[in-house]
Amino acid sequence: MERLPGFRDFYPEPLPSRDAGWSFDARQYVFDKWRETARRYGFREYDGPPLESLELFTTKSGDEIVGQLYNFTDKGDRAVALRPEMTPTLARMAAAHERNYKKPLKWFAVPQLFRYERQQKGRLREHFQFNADLIGETDPAADAELIALLIDTLRSFGLTEQDFVIRLSSRNAWHDFYQQGREGVSPSQKSDEYNFFQTIDKLERTAPEESEQKLAALGFSLAGVNRFIESGKPTAELQSILNNLAARGLHNFVKVDYHVIRGLAYYTGVVFEAFDAKGEFRAIAGGGRYDNLVKLVSGGKVDLPALGFGMGDVVLLELLKARGRLPKFDAVTDVFVLIEDEQLRSQSLKLVHELRAADFAVEYPLTPARPDKQFKRAQELKVGFTARVESDAYVRIRNLKTREEIVAGFADVANHLG
Amino acid sequence: MERLPGFRDFYPEPLPSRDAGWSFDARQYVFDKWRETARRYGFREYDGPPLESLELFTTKSGDEIVGQLYNFTDKGDRAVALRPEMTPTLARMAAAHERNYKKPLKWFAVPQLFRYERQQKGRLREHFQFNADLIGETDPAADAELIALLIDTLRSFGLTEQDFVIRLSSRNAWHDFYQQGREGVSPSQKSDEYNFFQTIDKLERTAPEESEQKLAALGFSLAGVNRFIESGKPTAELQSILNNLAARGLHNFVKVDYHVIRGLAYYTGVVFEAFDAKGEFRAIAGGGRYDNLVKLVSGGKVDLPALGFGMGDVVLLELLKARGRLPKFDAVTDVFVLIEDEQLRSQSLKLVHELRAADFAVEYPLTPARPDKQFKRAQELKVGFTARVESDAYVRIRNLKTREEIVAGFADVANHLG
Repeated sequence: MERLPGFRDFYPEPLPSRDAGWSFDARQYVFDKWRETARRYGFREYDGPPLESLELFTTKSGDEIVGQLYNFTDKGDRAVALRPEMTPTLARMAAAHERNYKKPLKWFAVPQLFRYERQQKGRLREHFQFNADLIGETDPAADAELIALLIDTLRSFGLTEQDFVIRLSSRNAWHDFYQQGREGVSPSQKSDEYNFFQTIDKLERTAPEESEQKLAALGFSLAGVNRFIESGKPTAELQSILNNLAARGLHNFVKVDYHVIRGLAYYTGVVFEAFDAKGEFRAIAGGGRYDNLVKLVSGGKVDLPALGFGMGDVVLLELLKARGRLPKFDAVTDVFVLIEDEQLRSQSLKLVHELRAADFAVEYPLTPARPDKQFKRAQELKVGFTARVESDAYVRIRNLKTREEIVAGFADVANHLG
Repeated sequence: MERLPGFRDFYPEPLPSRDAGWSFDARQYVFDKWRETARRYGFREYDGPPLESLELFTTKSGDEIVGQLYNFTDKGDRAVALRPEMTPTLARMAAAHERNYKKPLKWFAVPQLFRYERQQKGRLREHFQFNADLIGETDPAADAELIALLIDTLRSFGLTEQDFVIRLSSRNAWHDFYQQGREGVSPSQKSDEYNFFQTIDKLERTAPEESEQKLAALGFSLAGVNRFIESGKPTAELQSILNNLAARGLHNFVKVDYHVIRGLAYYTGVVFEAFDAKGEFRAIAGGGRYDNLVKLVSGGKVDLPALGFGMGDVVLLELLKARGRLPKFDAVTDVFVLIEDEQLRSQSLKLVHELRAADFAVEYPLTPARPDKQFKRAQELKVGFTARVESDAYVRIRNLKTREEIVAGFADVANHLG
């Protein structure tokens, strides 16, 4: 039996073959870095159900999202969906209990997310995402704190300013540009402004003639739009964020780039995306302000400003591999206890148990095996030490790196495995 | 909008209210202990998709399991199900790549599992489970290694032999009993033996008259069955496991108890369950040998003996709480940087950044706030230290436990946060 298309198995290292994908160890390495950086920044982890009511996602993104969802009707006749993103769940959870937490909330999660899209080669239907959000603060200081977290998360993998850049932009800047361009024209429709944003979002991936035409229909020229983008002049809000990041020494990781506007309808202010500096990969991460979403999801009951970003595991792992930033994952066993004399098996099991109790990762031959086979296994596992019980009282310890051997008292072995 | 019935949200500590369930911190505490103990035992982590083809689960458990599954037809017309258990995925993965790994495989996972059952009060439709399996070894030494892992996992939470017991049994012992009882009768049907096992499995939860009747129909007496159970005489296989555990000093955690036979059809040898010693909770964990499953799932291509156990998060957390074994989860922030003079905000942000780079979890006021409010927040967060920039060159550090204050050079702060 096969696994479903678009899903991944995560095998332990050493990986069985080239087509086995990423190992569990690589995935865990990424998760650990995400969690460590979030902890240093005072972000607290939460999680919600991978399955939610379909309505939670359509409320936020409209009915058109259903075509991309893993949705179905459950046995209780509920319209449900595997979560395609975490933000609606976060908004639901925050709205339900926000009174009991001090604001701002600094929360993060590492959910697995699901999308059912037409099957394309190598296109996944699930991925993991680092989701960090800051809820309850309108000041750009919050945006700076979140962007600093994004930068330091990527730096924690050994990536430098030569490897990635944060493209910083603002829906507010584009909103002002749009309003000025429409002065004297009939009052702008909200949907017109959204169409305008969508056209800007696709500018880099669309033929100039097509963009020109779309912009003209909205009363703008491509030349005017390009002049605004090329000016790259930060708004007061963006300047405040840049100054904040400069105080932390992180200014070289950020540049204002008004090409970025983010496709999703619900962003309301600052938006940003992280890209590899060579432009070889899709966006590593993206996010921004969504000040109206908590209100929307809570049916108007709770109104809290919010912002956040998401960073998927797939592009990140590809980038880390391409830049040689993935460590080797082989050495997890500390000690191999050799059992060459079966008379000493009980005593050897006792040693195994005591070393494990002392926090060492210990392996041993489950069944009788030739000494050379045992030693070969110890080498394959890349253990630091072998230990062999010589009598009730003594154990011979061998350091496989230095090839040093010593004999220690039974109760004293752990002290020699430094 | 509400979450689906039977699903849980995991909020960060401190929990917002009594009905908020278990915190993410409590869940992570459990996961960390599971992973730490597995590591010491040389078990390697893997994961598979939460969604699999329905056939994977019906092949193993028969069509009757479908009534309990979260199954549906996906947009590509595939019959799929959210995984109700991990073993079929493990068997699929092991069968696909077993040639590339040294046997025995010692693998574990921490999957979220799903069941759609008629809604009952407090009955969950998802839970997390520690799944540890050992594949490729028939010797009872493998059973002992796995049971030792189970015992040490529970001990890692501070539970002792006063708190739990492993009830050890064997399908082989019951098979022999069944064969002897059927001597002289017409050749036994496999389904008859399975009916017999099912009756034994339910013995403790069924009225004696009903068991008596069912056993009689199979040619057995309840008295005979009870005599066998009460004898509690270990088979050679069980004795070998007991001796192995005794060598590790773990004999007091195990007792032979032939009441245990495990409901699932696929167990083939040793079976066991972990219970709290007071008998207040459902089983904490259960497992055993399933030597035919890999062959079944691989369509006969790969034939490997295997055994494993599963330990859910729900009963375990209830037990830990009842026995006072859950730690407090409040102290995660190390330092609060006070910003009392806004002229020093940039310099303070620099300090925040440098302390975070030195691996401290650091908080600070995102926006201007009164000094007393800042200090109150630092106390709520239960930080060990506050730090206040006094000038470009100096920082005042206060140890909130000892109330000691010192002034350190800017670059020297981290050294004073010991």
